[in-house]
Amino acid sequence: MQSTYQNQQWFYVKRPDGRVSNEHYELRATELDGNLSANEVILRARIVSVDPYIRIQQHERNTYDVPHPLGIVQRAGVVGEVVASASPLFKAGDWVSAYSGWQLYARCHHSELTKLDPAAAPVSTALGVLGMPGRTAWFGLTEAGRPRPGDTLLVSGAAGAVGSLVAQFGKRAGCRVIGIAGGPGKCRFLTETLKLDGAVDYRAHATPAALSAAIQSATGGVDIYFDNVGGTITDAVIPLIKRRARIIICGAISQYDGGLDTPDLGPRFLQHMLFQRATIQGILARDFAHRMDEMLAIVAPWVKSGEIVFQETYVDGFAQLPEALNSLFEGKNIGKLLVRV
Amino acid sequence: MQSTYQNQQWFYVKRPDGRVSNEHYELRATELDGNLSANEVILRARIVSVDPYIRIQQHERNTYDVPHPLGIVQRAGVVGEVVASASPLFKAGDWVSAYSGWQLYARCHHSELTKLDPAAAPVSTALGVLGMPGRTAWFGLTEAGRPRPGDTLLVSGAAGAVGSLVAQFGKRAGCRVIGIAGGPGKCRFLTETLKLDGAVDYRAHATPAALSAAIQSATGGVDIYFDNVGGTITDAVIPLIKRRARIIICGAISQYDGGLDTPDLGPRFLQHMLFQRATIQGILARDFAHRMDEMLAIVAPWVKSGEIVFQETYVDGFAQLPEALNSLFEGKNIGKLLVRV
Repeated sequence: MQSTYQNQQWFYVKRPDGRVSNEHYELRATELDGNLSANEVILRARIVSVDPYIRIQQHERNTYDVPHPLGIVQRAGVVGEVVASASPLFKAGDWVSAYSGWQLYARCHHSELTKLDPAAAPVSTALGVLGMPGRTAWFGLTEAGRPRPGDTLLVSGAAGAVGSLVAQFGKRAGCRVIGIAGGPGKCRFLTETLKLDGAVDYRAHATPAALSAAIQSATGGVDIYFDNVGGTITDAVIPLIKRRARIIICGAISQYDGGLDTPDLGPRFLQHMLFQRATIQGILARDFAHRMDEMLAIVAPWVKSGEIVFQETYVDGFAQLPEALNSLFEGKNIGKLLVRV
Repeated sequence: MQSTYQNQQWFYVKRPDGRVSNEHYELRATELDGNLSANEVILRARIVSVDPYIRIQQHERNTYDVPHPLGIVQRAGVVGEVVASASPLFKAGDWVSAYSGWQLYARCHHSELTKLDPAAAPVSTALGVLGMPGRTAWFGLTEAGRPRPGDTLLVSGAAGAVGSLVAQFGKRAGCRVIGIAGGPGKCRFLTETLKLDGAVDYRAHATPAALSAAIQSATGGVDIYFDNVGGTITDAVIPLIKRRARIIICGAISQYDGGLDTPDLGPRFLQHMLFQRATIQGILARDFAHRMDEMLAIVAPWVKSGEIVFQETYVDGFAQLPEALNSLFEGKNIGKLLVRV
């Protein structure tokens, strides 16, 4: 058994006010002691997840968590290989997912690992359609959205990791699905690859009124709004909801660059909840973690049979992690953004 | 049988932009033909209801109804006496409730009337605790609020017709109940008459931050927010919600003077729904009209035994109706505002 590993770790060292970048992290070369206690393994990360929630946890107050501590390795979901094991459950070469963060190597207790079967699905799906984003999409839509065949489902951030799955799950539930995304490339992805019923490019409309008119024209009114974005896009949608509409707040990525601590202003809209007897519900992946088996029983066969598009965008290189995180807020990626390390 | 009745009617003739007043109505002296067809009765109104929803219906778009038509008698709930009857179900002297509007006399088909028992409860309660406001309070709280013993329930407009009932129903459900109202008189009503656990006078706080701090201090965080008011009061409350809070949008009276068509700006807050996995639900009395028997079975005995305070404020005189409606938006009344005619 190798006794030390030359590790690389990204430490989170400074809170961002606006955009997150390299200056908020420190890349450190360290040595990992490879002497394992019983039931420990050494994990070599191969794919590291960057997710918008990471930026939420960098706020100092008013979020769903205590802030991510400074001075520790950035927490994140990871897929990797077991390279050494003192556990009866894992052997070298096993693929696993874990929450071991932005580091090449980690020593983990085996209870922290989930074994993956590379023959069942690409291992990267444990960070996407068969992982946290898939769970968010599945339970957010089915539990809070309560889709009925014939409903019009509108998804913001529809080309993103969660939105692209919500849109497809909505199609399978018999909904008419319209996606909102930024730019013609993403909109083509929505209509041509995901086969949605329509797409609205929010960047093509200069004013909130023009965006609202375009969404009205594309949807004819909204039964379910699955919101990943918030801000002016949501402002444009809410007056278009129909009777007993369900609005699912899954994210507010437009506000993550500082707008959580000091929110900007938007038009008041709660009167529409009253007029339409509508519901807004905030959902979080962790609340459904104990129901992962339910989701996998349904969605994993779709993944295996190729019935679900799970688009992935890869960035190569451990050194790219902070910039990859930041790029989520520039809206460049389609589907799940992953970093190969 | 008397053949004509000297009637007085308030016609709604002009849409208000801001405050509603006499200029939007015309008082007309008319004659009502008293020759009844089978199953018709003549109703003499005695108590006429003024309710905030009347002002909502004066908006031209984006509400739960087509706008109240111009050129007809203002619609409203009424309690009155049958003065002539060609119905086997009603006789002269019967007390009834109806939706016959702002007029002294109305010829009604008997299917439009609900018979009242003056021995069971004061007939005015058919316009308050045992009528539409009571139904709104009961089903809004129990169905959308889902109160649990130990929950902290915060009610805005807590001294009003609906709010004062929500607060008392919340106490009976075992909640800790804090009311928000304008002025020390109303706040005394909340703590001394309704025996709530606390009251916040929103007029005593000059800034949203000060109001928010006062509400935080009074509540320690909010499990259920029953909102009749909207606007800056709701802005102050939402950051204080607790995990899985339920927000019930029953009204937005702060916006009814024009703020529905062209809403003003407020701080964005949907991120709190996400952080706390909270729910916002708009409710409307009419959605529970078919369940009136459920509510009456529980609440009518409380009214009869004196266990529920149903405060009423009376204005005297048919001529006062438009001004009485307007006074709702000045926040002068405690409990249900009624006009004796």
